[in-house]
Amino acid sequence: MSTITIAVDAMGGDNAPNEICAGAVSACKEFDDIEIVLTGDTEKIKSCLENHPRIHIEHADEIIDPDEHPANAIRRKKNSSLRVAMEMVRRGDAQGCVSAGSTGAIVAGGVLVVGRLPGIDRPAFGVPMPSIEKVSFMLDVGATVRCKPENLLQFATMGSIYSHKIMNVANPEVKLLSNGTEDIKGDDTVLAARELIEHKDSLNFCGYIEGNDVVWGRADVIVCDGFNGNIALKLGEGIMQGLKSLLVDEVSKSFMAKAGMLLMSPVVKRLWARFNYEKYGGSPLLGVNGAVIKAHGRSKSPAIVSAISAARKFIGENAIELISREI
Amino acid sequence: MSTITIAVDAMGGDNAPNEICAGAVSACKEFDDIEIVLTGDTEKIKSCLENHPRIHIEHADEIIDPDEHPANAIRRKKNSSLRVAMEMVRRGDAQGCVSAGSTGAIVAGGVLVVGRLPGIDRPAFGVPMPSIEKVSFMLDVGATVRCKPENLLQFATMGSIYSHKIMNVANPEVKLLSNGTEDIKGDDTVLAARELIEHKDSLNFCGYIEGNDVVWGRADVIVCDGFNGNIALKLGEGIMQGLKSLLVDEVSKSFMAKAGMLLMSPVVKRLWARFNYEKYGGSPLLGVNGAVIKAHGRSKSPAIVSAISAARKFIGENAIELISREI
Repeated sequence: MSTITIAVDAMGGDNAPNEICAGAVSACKEFDDIEIVLTGDTEKIKSCLENHPRIHIEHADEIIDPDEHPANAIRRKKNSSLRVAMEMVRRGDAQGCVSAGSTGAIVAGGVLVVGRLPGIDRPAFGVPMPSIEKVSFMLDVGATVRCKPENLLQFATMGSIYSHKIMNVANPEVKLLSNGTEDIKGDDTVLAARELIEHKDSLNFCGYIEGNDVVWGRADVIVCDGFNGNIALKLGEGIMQGLKSLLVDEVSKSFMAKAGMLLMSPVVKRLWARFNYEKYGGSPLLGVNGAVIKAHGRSKSPAIVSAISAARKFIGENAIELISREI
Repeated sequence: MSTITIAVDAMGGDNAPNEICAGAVSACKEFDDIEIVLTGDTEKIKSCLENHPRIHIEHADEIIDPDEHPANAIRRKKNSSLRVAMEMVRRGDAQGCVSAGSTGAIVAGGVLVVGRLPGIDRPAFGVPMPSIEKVSFMLDVGATVRCKPENLLQFATMGSIYSHKIMNVANPEVKLLSNGTEDIKGDDTVLAARELIEHKDSLNFCGYIEGNDVVWGRADVIVCDGFNGNIALKLGEGIMQGLKSLLVDEVSKSFMAKAGMLLMSPVVKRLWARFNYEKYGGSPLLGVNGAVIKAHGRSKSPAIVSAISAARKFIGENAIELISREI
């Protein structure tokens, strides 16, 4: 059994470094075959880190702020926790990295530090999307805002490999997100991408998917540009959070409703768990030369464990090599 | 008090003609100042129509099928219920029309039969969007898939007038849907549209809005192209329907949960009613020379009443003239 080394940005996200460190420890307990290098302020990390023989620290005294210009921050802050983690991947000292930090900085670092795979024009953030019937995989949700049809074709290819190898879907159904399922729908880019994807023999392309069918999980891989994908993802997250907050608010006003909620709590918890992003293990940045996984900014330790687990599987399945071969 | 004449496509939508006719009768009972002309098969309409002195029938023996090519159907089926209703608007025999029929055919008819307003390049479907804090107005949700920045500027102007005059919002806050709220976000079209809208003095432009803020209602007018708007609208509808169906399914499996649901039913009904599209009165097709209102394809009579009420208000407030003056 060869060991997999994963660099984890200890300072990224709303709950850093505590939850990141706790997640690293849990992940090492769960997986015997990984070593973790936490990057960030040594003192701060040590203060919240349980000793573990497979966890190491790489000091980095800068932090990239979510409000900074992503590419500038990555270029200038050579000693930031994120850049140090990515440099480890670039040098081959780690096979992958995980960060709950700024999305833009992770994309910038993926391209400028880790580097794109040969033949890949633009990277894509994929995200496992829990839906009613299954967990789909949607990409891009925010790495590449302006896409050419060729980018969408590459996203389809990378998404299909991820769905198959990491999410264990046999012959994944690939669909393009559009404003209707009829062939005449789509904007110019989507129409041109459809032509390209249809003619790629290695893909099981099944046409367009519209918004409501995303909810039902009527595709394994949902391909879209980063602009649309980002709006759709945030809208979905917002609706779930909004409904939760409305429900809590309304229930608190009535004794009857409180009693009802108590009786219903197993059902509500089950439904909630089904759509809980923490279970679904981070967003891979596909198209770069290493396993780069973004965890949600609000990640607590279970979400960090999921993201580390996704990085481990990504590396173990040689996903980078598979993508390179297919592109 | 001058009478407003509204042509209503009696044959469009999943529940035509019964629910359309019932809606027309209810609307006439609610509003003293309207006359309604139902267009469609006279026999079928008569068979489900309660007599009312202010409801008339204009015979039309063709129906546009949702699967037909919209523009071709509008051009060829000169005697379809939708086209006959739109011809009445074009001739001035009606000031507005309502249809629950094919979205594409309504757009095609709006442009080819009713005609665009001078200076308007492309029309937009607006939709009142119930959110947590208010009812926003979002446009375009599917009339114009490919938008230029100038189109988005016109949508912003028309949406602002609609929000102010029909939805009674003082100084409506206008925002552009984007993949983040920072100024650097947006694709090329959105960035260029932002420049244009920012410099239009009559608009209260407040920057970008992202998916999660749509849910909270953090804008009065949300401007986007028809591709994005359509995906967002269907995603929102799909999530609400999906959650309802999941909840019903889960609750049916447990006696405790059923009892809990019974106690919670006032709360659930109240929440549901808040997001019920039937209350919010149809989607106006803005930018054409008449009040053209689309009702949801699944509309039952209350939704038809809402759509007729929206048409009545649109006409009563001289919205067409206000839009023409501003463009």
